[in-house]
Amino acid sequence: MAKLVFIRHGQSEWNLENLFTGWVDVNLSEQGVREAKEAGRKLKAAGLEFDQAYTSVLKRAIKTLHFALEESDQLWIPETKTWRLNERHYGALQGKNKAVAAEEFGDEQVHIWRRSYDVLPPLLSADDEGSAANDRRYAELDERTVPGGENLKVTLERVIPFWQDHIAPDLLAGKNVIVAAHGNSLRALTKYIEEISDEDIMDVEMATGQPVVYTLDERLNIIDKEKL
Amino acid sequence: MAKLVFIRHGQSEWNLENLFTGWVDVNLSEQGVREAKEAGRKLKAAGLEFDQAYTSVLKRAIKTLHFALEESDQLWIPETKTWRLNERHYGALQGKNKAVAAEEFGDEQVHIWRRSYDVLPPLLSADDEGSAANDRRYAELDERTVPGGENLKVTLERVIPFWQDHIAPDLLAGKNVIVAAHGNSLRALTKYIEEISDEDIMDVEMATGQPVVYTLDERLNIIDKEKL
Repeated sequence: MAKLVFIRHGQSEWNLENLFTGWVDVNLSEQGVREAKEAGRKLKAAGLEFDQAYTSVLKRAIKTLHFALEESDQLWIPETKTWRLNERHYGALQGKNKAVAAEEFGDEQVHIWRRSYDVLPPLLSADDEGSAANDRRYAELDERTVPGGENLKVTLERVIPFWQDHIAPDLLAGKNVIVAAHGNSLRALTKYIEEISDEDIMDVEMATGQPVVYTLDERLNIIDKEKL
Repeated sequence: MAKLVFIRHGQSEWNLENLFTGWVDVNLSEQGVREAKEAGRKLKAAGLEFDQAYTSVLKRAIKTLHFALEESDQLWIPETKTWRLNERHYGALQGKNKAVAAEEFGDEQVHIWRRSYDVLPPLLSADDEGSAANDRRYAELDERTVPGGENLKVTLERVIPFWQDHIAPDLLAGKNVIVAAHGNSLRALTKYIEEISDEDIMDVEMATGQPVVYTLDERLNIIDKEKL
């Protein structure tokens, strides 16, 4: 039986400032670093030993992974980074204060952008300064693949191919896998493996820095789920 | 023309205590952390952008890589860890103080172990407590592959296949590559690419935390070598 662990990155500097973050490569706050290290100590206390780590190409997730692996004495395990595990792209809202956005667009509209499954935020175009199209780390993606903004539905559609191609094959081979990622990419994975409806998934909260441990049988049915 | 950068890990806690280290997974000292971050600032100032990172399965090299990549804003690049880039295995000398070893075995013998190209140190057997055979990170190596002790010649013989299979193909494809590793695994690579003799290589010193930048032509001839 394989173990699968999800960790949402610790608090970031922009969580602290109440800004929409998305694909902006914001650092962990000091509290976020503490959360990541604490997650590692919990993994160690639980005796969890991993064979493979996956994370996004955003430093708040990468650093959370590294702190957690180092604290649990397994910084040496193989690690793969992928844009597919990135946070939901928040389009033209990225960098905006959430309260300011509520004044600008209205509370209800901002609530819809944050909480609906399939409504897109205002989009960034490839010419906009903050577009991922201008970022070297996405240079291998064609223009149609680089998002200008995502909802959870679109996020799930680019996360699940990574589950299918990498995470599920590892688990089926009996490997223990840790995934350090973001609120919405982990929500997408959670929706998929727990078969949660479009309506209910938006109420599922992932706590920062809290490892969620699944025990899976040989067909990847969930035998147990535990929050450390 | 591709860039190839070697970085020897920053000072470790055992460098500081004058102990033989080898495959023991010793941490960076505080000075070592500072050296690694400074290396990252130098890489950034030099405008070096990497496509691929390689390191060993030992945390002093992995953490040096992470600090250097983070300081140069490229923690997101793909990273592969391999035992083939580990430090030379120092056999039964691992964990011994170098001065104490000199008293026990004589100055001349210790000098030979440290400075000869092809004399092996006293070996650890697979049953010895400190043997890598008991370490989960080497579980995929067969017993004949796990070393009980290495000289530079043997180290080179296990490093060069990794150059051939991974580093050279990347460079031939025009990728810029950074290798964060150890005094002797980097000495082995240096010997190979600079065609240094068995006699002369033992006098080549790799400074901790100092990036060595090679510019290579399309046949991997060295066009330029610069120490940052």
